[in-house]
Amino acid sequence: MSNDAFVPHPDRLLPADPAVRDIARSLYELEKDQPIVSPHGHVDPRLLLDDEPFRDPTSLFITPDHYVNRLMHARGVDLADLGVNQGPLDETASRKAWHLLAEHWHAYAGTPSRYWMEHEFSEVFGLETVLNPRTADAMYDEIAQKLAQPEFRPRALFDQFGIEVMATTDDPVDDLAPHDALAADESFTGQVIPTFRPDKYLEPARADFRELADALGEAAGVDTGTYDGHLEAMRVRRLYFRDHGAVSSDHAHIDPGTARLAIEEARRFYTAAREGTIGADEAVALRRHLLADQARLAAEDGLVMTIHPAVARNHSDAMFSTFGADVGFDIPVAVDYVHHLRPMLNDVGHAEGFRTVLFTIDETVFSREIAPLAGVYPSVYAGAPWWFIDSPDAILRFRRAVSETLGYTRTSGFIDDTRAFCSIPARHDMSRRIDAIHLAGLVAEHRMRLEDAQELVATLPTQQPREVFRLGETA
Amino acid sequence: MSNDAFVPHPDRLLPADPAVRDIARSLYELEKDQPIVSPHGHVDPRLLLDDEPFRDPTSLFITPDHYVNRLMHARGVDLADLGVNQGPLDETASRKAWHLLAEHWHAYAGTPSRYWMEHEFSEVFGLETVLNPRTADAMYDEIAQKLAQPEFRPRALFDQFGIEVMATTDDPVDDLAPHDALAADESFTGQVIPTFRPDKYLEPARADFRELADALGEAAGVDTGTYDGHLEAMRVRRLYFRDHGAVSSDHAHIDPGTARLAIEEARRFYTAAREGTIGADEAVALRRHLLADQARLAAEDGLVMTIHPAVARNHSDAMFSTFGADVGFDIPVAVDYVHHLRPMLNDVGHAEGFRTVLFTIDETVFSREIAPLAGVYPSVYAGAPWWFIDSPDAILRFRRAVSETLGYTRTSGFIDDTRAFCSIPARHDMSRRIDAIHLAGLVAEHRMRLEDAQELVATLPTQQPREVFRLGETA
Amino acid sequence: MSNDAFVPHPDRLLPADPAVRDIARSLYELEKDQPIVSPHGHVDPRLLLDDEPFRDPTSLFITPDHYVNRLMHARGVDLADLGVNQGPLDETASRKAWHLLAEHWHAYAGTPSRYWMEHEFSEVFGLETVLNPRTADAMYDEIAQKLAQPEFRPRALFDQFGIEVMATTDDPVDDLAPHDALAADESFTGQVIPTFRPDKYLEPARADFRELADALGEAAGVDTGTYDGHLEAMRVRRLYFRDHGAVSSDHAHIDPGTARLAIEEARRFYTAAREGTIGADEAVALRRHLLADQARLAAEDGLVMTIHPAVARNHSDAMFSTFGADVGFDIPVAVDYVHHLRPMLNDVGHAEGFRTVLFTIDETVFSREIAPLAGVYPSVYAGAPWWFIDSPDAILRFRRAVSETLGYTRTSGFIDDTRAFCSIPARHDMSRRIDAIHLAGLVAEHRMRLEDAQELVATLPTQQPREVFRLGETA
Repeated sequence: MSNDAFVPHPDRLLPADPAVRDIARSLYELEKDQPIVSPHGHVDPRLLLDDEPFRDPTSLFITPDHYVNRLMHARGVDLADLGVNQGPLDETASRKAWHLLAEHWHAYAGTPSRYWMEHEFSEVFGLETVLNPRTADAMYDEIAQKLAQPEFRPRALFDQFGIEVMATTDDPVDDLAPHDALAADESFTGQVIPTFRPDKYLEPARADFRELADALGEAAGVDTGTYDGHLEAMRVRRLYFRDHGAVSSDHAHIDPGTARLAIEEARRFYTAAREGTIGADEAVALRRHLLADQARLAAEDGLVMTIHPAVARNHSDAMFSTFGADVGFDIPVAVDYVHHLRPMLNDVGHAEGFRTVLFTIDETVFSREIAPLAGVYPSVYAGAPWWFIDSPDAILRFRRAVSETLGYTRTSGFIDDTRAFCSIPARHDMSRRIDAIHLAGLVAEHRMRLEDAQELVATLPTQQPREVFRLGETA
Repeated sequence: MSNDAFVPHPDRLLPADPAVRDIARSLYELEKDQPIVSPHGHVDPRLLLDDEPFRDPTSLFITPDHYVNRLMHARGVDLADLGVNQGPLDETASRKAWHLLAEHWHAYAGTPSRYWMEHEFSEVFGLETVLNPRTADAMYDEIAQKLAQPEFRPRALFDQFGIEVMATTDDPVDDLAPHDALAADESFTGQVIPTFRPDKYLEPARADFRELADALGEAAGVDTGTYDGHLEAMRVRRLYFRDHGAVSSDHAHIDPGTARLAIEEARRFYTAAREGTIGADEAVALRRHLLADQARLAAEDGLVMTIHPAVARNHSDAMFSTFGADVGFDIPVAVDYVHHLRPMLNDVGHAEGFRTVLFTIDETVFSREIAPLAGVYPSVYAGAPWWFIDSPDAILRFRRAVSETLGYTRTSGFIDDTRAFCSIPARHDMSRRIDAIHLAGLVAEHRMRLEDAQELVATLPTQQPREVFRLGETA
Repeated sequence: MSNDAFVPHPDRLLPADPAVRDIARSLYELEKDQPIVSPHGHVDPRLLLDDEPFRDPTSLFITPDHYVNRLMHARGVDLADLGVNQGPLDETASRKAWHLLAEHWHAYAGTPSRYWMEHEFSEVFGLETVLNPRTADAMYDEIAQKLAQPEFRPRALFDQFGIEVMATTDDPVDDLAPHDALAADESFTGQVIPTFRPDKYLEPARADFRELADALGEAAGVDTGTYDGHLEAMRVRRLYFRDHGAVSSDHAHIDPGTARLAIEEARRFYTAAREGTIGADEAVALRRHLLADQARLAAEDGLVMTIHPAVARNHSDAMFSTFGADVGFDIPVAVDYVHHLRPMLNDVGHAEGFRTVLFTIDETVFSREIAPLAGVYPSVYAGAPWWFIDSPDAILRFRRAVSETLGYTRTSGFIDDTRAFCSIPARHDMSRRIDAIHLAGLVAEHRMRLEDAQELVATLPTQQPREVFRLGETA
């Protein structure tokens, strides 16, 4: 049917005003073909190591993507019908989930999820229709057919997407064998690097704190029966990660507290945590101390510390017990960076090796805290908008809130933070368009010279994250 | 005088860019004649039952409208001179108040109050001048003359405004006789439904808590000497309201806390509250428990729970003691929905009968809390901007902050929340224009297909609030 | 070199849309030549008393300006190399700092610091090149040469800038001799008035609280050994300031708390503070009480109380100990005006003599707290955006957040708050452009009549701050 025809407009997102759009397009042209550097994300390295074909459109686009599933769930769809926690789906179940997406697709109008997926449908899979119940089967078939072809295997896409570096997110006890195997594989020339993500080992209130500490100790070859041993084990594992290519550690606690305890207190709280007798307040205090320790270790080993705080995880107990984590019930809360980071920045904020990138979903800290901090501490960078606010309007709000204090050079460059491998180019492309839009507005209003904007976009997509994440140093 | 001539521009609010304005106008055209559904407001049902002529322009436009009075008061006008708390005004006093408004009218330039009133002056009363000291008397006279005509009585206006359903806000002990009489009156075909508003009965710190509880018990025919009796009385009265047409209950405490107490503790605190011996912290804890009970009752009876929290009421003691409540000294404060609603949403958030709509004047929760919550819980909807932020720029900020997570379908539809009966069409019209503007921007930037925007506006004004407030079920 | 040529565009900042830009330009034309009233700033009165030539471009533009230095420091420059805390620089050091600015100038693209300085380079010094390493020496030389000319001395610039009134910020024990001398000097016709800034005397947690109190007592001729004496000394010094031309006092604590203590408690805490034995919580409580006292004194003496709260000063201990205060390590935090001001506004908020202007760097209170407070209390005004948010996008956000509740008449008028004397006209000009832009948008969208906007801009730049700061009364 003719009204099902659809391809994303080449000027999508660009400003409606013709004069500003022309400037934005000219800046975007300078950005769009630059290689992708993805210093933080959640793709499994085995995807590229194994290089197996993607199974089907549903497991590629729907089941693992909580951005997509959550809105359907809010509209009454059972997560099980989208394949969540159901193991591999058979053809019937997979097609049923796909049809659910098609039926609800109109409700995604204006969301970045739809924007990214329409980019992927068109630019990765060459589809030319809009998703709806009439087109669902044909689109499913066409994607499925393509997925069976060699040029749609992960490694081929990695190259086609122009990815230069992609970081994964990894458990501190992981042996990083997939990363080693990939690095040793001469047939794969991409750079896939691990990220040290120690969150759960730093939460003394967890019931399994002792088991986690023991596993950490085993991986490190260090006795973690004491606080000092735990610290040493962290040091060992961070160095292991660094030696296997990592450039950053990632930290996502409910608050970014970094107040240090007296050492004797830390030791005592640690022992209580192992014994399961630690109080709630003490567990918070010890968690903050352990994060402060990570900062000290970062000053030693040079891993960039990315902080992604202030999300109430698994807000619904029922959904967590049925479907587990990462299914859409993580809800942001307010963050206070200024008081919480003060101890850490006084401790290592001026140390040469230390560097941190601050992310937020709480937009109130854009102009109030992140811009002022990253605009004066040489070790602090403003992270790109993340998760719920990795979206056109919110990214523009970010640029308009921080640039007047920071300019562009104290920002992290774009972070896709995604599990959805095929969305990586769509997300980076969107970010480049938004930066072009913001800068074009400044140029059109005579607030920035065109040549200054051109100079910025020449380095923003690729060189900026390389520098911030010290990626030159690992190459 | 020629420079006094004024009628609102037909394209008012629409974007200046001609291309975007054309799209916005085309979308607005699809919305503007849809019937008005007003699921939350403060018009007195007796207004329509009695159908008496409005008394005079001042009592219609000024005296009861704290939006209007507060800015004049800030500029030095005594509220008494605007008729607040003075009983019915005589002609001299009424005209004096009207002249005060005319003298200060320039200070309202750019405010929604002026926007709405100019809409009313023009579209309801057919005036063609701007209000100022020169035009004040003529405008007063013309409005007064119209008010004496039958087509300006409340019921005639109700029909002329195209109101399909209008909810009032009512005390739990109210017998709802005006609603019954209206429903029984075959000469009136509109739907005027009550709303259950139990706030003051849920505030154990009030000095009159016992008297209120006793009155509740009397209305319900239940002994409220105990917590259990109070709970049962609430159940009874909610059902009474539902049986008389109510579709929602409304809740406006200083925070939206819903943490439950152990039942024995609730009983003990309740008894202490009746005896006037409850401590401040216990009163807060019991209030939150009682709100959690309302949620449980909502899961039983299906009344939609609208939450309007975080306003420091009667900020000025002196003004409260002189003029009473609702005279402009209610000031918003920060809200935390994520922690405060967690107990409630874990209790009934997945129950079939339960539904809640979250309102805020604290814009920080638009993208941080409300969009993520309403974008995943099937029972949660994002309420339209309210009170101070029921205004063009703020509504646009709301759409731009929540739509990227939620789209449009998880939002409540427009809520006028007004005491000013004649402002209802102006307010709904403004909201429709703003949605058209927001969507037109997305279309013009190739972020949404025109047909998707058209589909949305076809259902937004009327069908969306009908569905969210289950208004079909009561019709 | 031709690509080094640069002068700021006459339409800089104005909207790109030609129709809106034309309206904005027409409104700006009505504003641009109005005299400058600067009711709050940090220029040293001795600058105008002595009227010495400025020493060199670096000490004029770089060394004292933490806006400028902080971004270079974040990019790795040592503050010492910018002259901070180095005493007068020799030619080599001064030129070296200037070259550092030139090397980093591209990183300031889009910041107000660059915007203001380019305005100054062009409109004050007549330069026609952009700053970069190629042009740095020539620009340095040309500025240095100009600084040696009589028409670039402070008094000549004061006249050339069109400054009518300029307030300084002064210590309560200051004898204000420079102000007196300036006022007595018939060759200088400008008005330079002091501002009472008692912050440090109101911080009982300071180690030097006793010494400060003693100095205050000495200046006032009152024994400050007791709380009552301290209060009386404050009364005396405030009157001294008022008698020497002051129209306001300025207050910048970490929170704007104004809760009063029982008088006996205040006396006890005061004594403990003098003795250095006051606890942390008591020190906070006493500080809030002392601020509440300032409000009472303001109701007596009529000094307008400007409140600039919620900045964590000297966030980096190391930088503070090396370079002292005001070097860029002051970071904003969240503010709560509603609860914190309630005691004060209940105490004196309706008193005839009392007036307060609320400033914020925490944008969340624009629509949530400041607009509702200033839109109802006759004594409260919304202060212009300050410090990090004294920038085009943030000022627009301010107007768009508060105007729908307040209009324009309850706002303070522009406050430059600057130490950088030569930036005063640039800052005021920027503010005028932004107001013109905001109003032009309203006019273009038929939300405000052109004549209403014209009426507003006729009084905004000069008359509005005169009225808010009661400057007519002192003239």
